[in-house]
Amino acid sequence: MLSQNEIKLINSLKIKKYRKKYLEFIAEGDKIIKELIDEGMEVVHIFAINDNFIHQKCRIISESDLNKITALQHHHNSFAVFKIPIIDVSINSNEWSLVLDDIQDPGNMGTIIRTCDWFGIKQIFCSDGCVDAYNPKVVQASMASVGRVNVIETDIEQLFMEHDLPVYGAVLNGENYRVQSYEQKGFILIGNEGHGIRESLHAKINFPITIPKNGKAESLNAGIATALILDKLA
Amino acid sequence: MLSQNEIKLINSLKIKKYRKKYLEFIAEGDKIIKELIDEGMEVVHIFAINDNFIHQKCRIISESDLNKITALQHHHNSFAVFKIPIIDVSINSNEWSLVLDDIQDPGNMGTIIRTCDWFGIKQIFCSDGCVDAYNPKVVQASMASVGRVNVIETDIEQLFMEHDLPVYGAVLNGENYRVQSYEQKGFILIGNEGHGIRESLHAKINFPITIPKNGKAESLNAGIATALILDKLA
Repeated sequence: MLSQNEIKLINSLKIKKYRKKYLEFIAEGDKIIKELIDEGMEVVHIFAINDNFIHQKCRIISESDLNKITALQHHHNSFAVFKIPIIDVSINSNEWSLVLDDIQDPGNMGTIIRTCDWFGIKQIFCSDGCVDAYNPKVVQASMASVGRVNVIETDIEQLFMEHDLPVYGAVLNGENYRVQSYEQKGFILIGNEGHGIRESLHAKINFPITIPKNGKAESLNAGIATALILDKLA
Repeated sequence: MLSQNEIKLINSLKIKKYRKKYLEFIAEGDKIIKELIDEGMEVVHIFAINDNFIHQKCRIISESDLNKITALQHHHNSFAVFKIPIIDVSINSNEWSLVLDDIQDPGNMGTIIRTCDWFGIKQIFCSDGCVDAYNPKVVQASMASVGRVNVIETDIEQLFMEHDLPVYGAVLNGENYRVQSYEQKGFILIGNEGHGIRESLHAKINFPITIPKNGKAESLNAGIATALILDKLA
């Protein structure tokens, strides 16, 4: 059984402020929890409603207790609290990095992290207006990829100033991204879902690129745009 | 002010059964509502909390009334009920069609519809296990593209039997989708988020295709996979 204190503490991890305070985050479901453990994430608690999950820290709890802590509409069989890892925030300048300007939708952010993991992009730089990578919805949508990709909150303008790497920005009136030639490393900059890339960053873009459309949709989802561009680098 | 009956009726449209009964669906926010009107969708009601929305059917309601009907966590300024259009369910055999086998996540479905609209794909065939295209979350994620792309619920096996068109299926061990050559028309088949394409459909696939990975993620989001493949046809 979970104590009231445990329930309160765990639920506080749904809020960024408390994730930063306790340096812990939650993940749900056997598959994601096992992958995060395999990636070396430090387990604080695992709770399960049956004995399928074999781990020394796993405690069996009731479904009613699980309902008190799940962040999902329909809970899975297991729930875990992990330590937020201390990651290397320095940039590997020999690789591509993704840079996100105020990506706010947790589903988009999780999908973007998962897509980076698929394409072998290991570092994502986020403006402070981005949804936090350890938000429960981001963790779930990332399908545990948040354990394999470094997501670093930073000042983007400063990042571009400090590193002499080409910036490819997804904009509305750039070069066709299929025709554009790409260097061996650099930054791919993706803007906010509604407003695109903020005005002050436009001057930093060396190669404005655009995904041409054949149909009528006004814009593409930010995760889709990211995937199409990363595919070109692959 | 909304009557109790109106509130009840509108809320029932969040459930597929009642959407089928009344042949109505809901959409929220000025931008999406205006685009749906522009696409010729028939308006049943528009409700707004201010007079920004100019339309003869628009009624001003209180924020508290809007809170009683919104399907969103944070309501927009306007809310509409539209008639579900009667669409042409026959297939245009001279074009590409997307075929979805049990896509269940509304965000994925909406993003896929929006992506089809971007790439000029005008028809999507869905198995009956797919989330309904007029689900409120699908409508919002589609960004009104549901008004421009025909989404048709059908028996997929029968669809493939009745049409002599090549079927390209996204599987785990197919030809590299970048190397694959594509005909001028046919079906692109995308499977369920968790289980992929159902076993009984595998025999119908003429060209199994795969998106190669450089990283470690076990799979790609279904919307992302769809976009990458549609991009190859563009």
